[in-house]
Amino acid sequence: MKVRLEPAPIRGFRFAGVCAGLRNEPGRKDLGLIVTDWPVAAAGVFTSNRVKAAPVIVSRERIKRGHLQAVAANSGSANCFTGKAGLKLAYDSSAAVARELGCAAELVAPCSTGVIGRTYDLAKYRAGVRDAVAALGPDRFEDFARAIMTTDTHPKMASATVKVAGVEVSIVGCAKGAGMIEPKMATMLAFVMTDAAIKPPALKRTLARALPQSFNAITVDGDMSTNDTLLLMASGAAGNRALAGRDLATFESAVAEVSSALARELVRDGEGATKLVTVEVRGARTHADADRVARQIANSPLVKTAFFGCDPNFGRILMAAGKAGVVLDLDRIEVTLGGIKLASRGALHTNALATAATRMKEPEFGLTIDLKLGKASARIVTCDLSFDYVKINAEYTT
Amino acid sequence: MKVRLEPAPIRGFRFAGVCAGLRNEPGRKDLGLIVTDWPVAAAGVFTSNRVKAAPVIVSRERIKRGHLQAVAANSGSANCFTGKAGLKLAYDSSAAVARELGCAAELVAPCSTGVIGRTYDLAKYRAGVRDAVAALGPDRFEDFARAIMTTDTHPKMASATVKVAGVEVSIVGCAKGAGMIEPKMATMLAFVMTDAAIKPPALKRTLARALPQSFNAITVDGDMSTNDTLLLMASGAAGNRALAGRDLATFESAVAEVSSALARELVRDGEGATKLVTVEVRGARTHADADRVARQIANSPLVKTAFFGCDPNFGRILMAAGKAGVVLDLDRIEVTLGGIKLASRGALHTNALATAATRMKEPEFGLTIDLKLGKASARIVTCDLSFDYVKINAEYTT
Repeated sequence: MKVRLEPAPIRGFRFAGVCAGLRNEPGRKDLGLIVTDWPVAAAGVFTSNRVKAAPVIVSRERIKRGHLQAVAANSGSANCFTGKAGLKLAYDSSAAVARELGCAAELVAPCSTGVIGRTYDLAKYRAGVRDAVAALGPDRFEDFARAIMTTDTHPKMASATVKVAGVEVSIVGCAKGAGMIEPKMATMLAFVMTDAAIKPPALKRTLARALPQSFNAITVDGDMSTNDTLLLMASGAAGNRALAGRDLATFESAVAEVSSALARELVRDGEGATKLVTVEVRGARTHADADRVARQIANSPLVKTAFFGCDPNFGRILMAAGKAGVVLDLDRIEVTLGGIKLASRGALHTNALATAATRMKEPEFGLTIDLKLGKASARIVTCDLSFDYVKINAEYTT
Repeated sequence: MKVRLEPAPIRGFRFAGVCAGLRNEPGRKDLGLIVTDWPVAAAGVFTSNRVKAAPVIVSRERIKRGHLQAVAANSGSANCFTGKAGLKLAYDSSAAVARELGCAAELVAPCSTGVIGRTYDLAKYRAGVRDAVAALGPDRFEDFARAIMTTDTHPKMASATVKVAGVEVSIVGCAKGAGMIEPKMATMLAFVMTDAAIKPPALKRTLARALPQSFNAITVDGDMSTNDTLLLMASGAAGNRALAGRDLATFESAVAEVSSALARELVRDGEGATKLVTVEVRGARTHADADRVARQIANSPLVKTAFFGCDPNFGRILMAAGKAGVVLDLDRIEVTLGGIKLASRGALHTNALATAATRMKEPEFGLTIDLKLGKASARIVTCDLSFDYVKINAEYTT
């Protein structure tokens, strides 16, 4: 199975992305719809930030029943810290979508991304929904992916097909988010769809299994959005028989791979990012230990600026590993950067630094820390911290 | 009592700072000595990073007895991740100091700061020690403060005098550190001296009380050094009688204020910093809650870049508060920036933003978050995240 960073045909879904004028940027798409012809199995995960946006509150409640018929996502306003008015706006917005589609409002999941503390114009939204419904088509997926962009430089899409229970099924997804990214649950907005037939409880498990290695294994800046939402919807249009055993495992791993590809694309397009770095910690006593060390390294501003400067800065990597609070044995630890061993058996290989620096000029490389204390491992995908991260965030109002 | 950011006369101590050639930068001071004429009461705290430099291991062991006669601090090499050779180097270095001074090696605390993974030349160090001993003087404190600088732009010193038990006593300190700063114990290197007479156990308590509001309440980049060391030494030359009751409290608070002044100076000189921001969280249920929220805000790259851009970005502040995992009531939370209320009672005061942006142009301002849930509070001093932080750290090898 191969994951492609482009849309693929998927049965049972229609998409649209239009300019509703919510952003006050003429011509820029800011309202997207994902619609199915009937209520389909759906599962979702949301931010664990204590501050949750109004649409997160509404969608989280609605997804509990396990079915959705539409997703309505807007950019330009996060509809967060907007009190009762914001909650009413989320309800009214999804009611407008339901009315145009002729479905129950409880089957519509609203999502918002953009500036915190601001609402948006409901009349413009309603007009946008009419335009979007008129524009719905099975081949408009990229329009949807564009409508949810904020500081993203391009739409992030991924797709794969996999044969399960004798039928070829598609998995298609898109995501947005470039800053405020260290999802503890899901990144700002991500949508994964499949035409496979699968019941809500199995879909929920599929999502839970895809998360740890995809959206929960990335970081841009260690910051967690108030609007993080990941929705997984299954139209069932592929007409496969019930997924079980090896078929279910194949399907789950395909969803996980599409999710991972989207998550990596978020980091690659991280604010100001020039490099994608996969930090892997091996040989830990427990997965939790490995994860803590990997996150400390992946979030350290000193390590991230060294990535930007193509500086194989062993000292900062070691410092970040040490502050995770996990027991380390400095005589055993092995650090490999871009395939070059920087340190092992308590010694720094200073003659390897020049080659490692050259490897760091590539847009993507790995950093592996082998603690040599056990068998557990963890992997976090991160990016560098560049001048442009500062520029983008000193100038853009979230 | 007034804390001054300059040296003051202090009885019982002599200082030196010389160029020993450890840094290969001709003329740059890189070896400093603090010497007393007899063993004096001393207390110290050290990094809680699991990776500890060799001099930290040696000094931590020696300080346990409660007395020191000399501190020897070098820049240019952290002597960290240097294995048994590094540990031997730390012992040999302090032995050289002891020999020149004619005291026991167990009374010498070695300290190092600079690049991780490198040792330094012992012959040069020994020659430097001879020069430093020859240069010792009661008025050479600034030389010492300069010898321990790395990316610091200027030496950081503070002093105060306070009358206790009928005698005027001095408290003088210096510190270095501009990056890798979120001490969980003490910042990279800081030395506080007093000529008060005080026994080791009381001195240890004084240090423990000064820490939470000084060196443990600052952050530059959330990174914790492998070499953090704070030493407090009392020569007793002021000849006061035993400190107790109100006198001890006065003395403790003077030490805490000198420590806080030094800690603030570290942040003010933080790598690339253009603004000093005191983040205060009030109205929390517990101090731990307040501290977690304050640290999340003070370390968020999105909040720090907004400081740099003079952007009163309420959304990022709220996001960072929310990811602390502490219960928040959005209808109660009050956020005040530079004296301007940005939000209260669930509403963002959009018409206050322009004034707040103007206040943020000042080199120092406060950010107060009142959770209105309890009576506990916490304060963290931080700085902004600027282009220069990236520049300094993409180019400098730690």
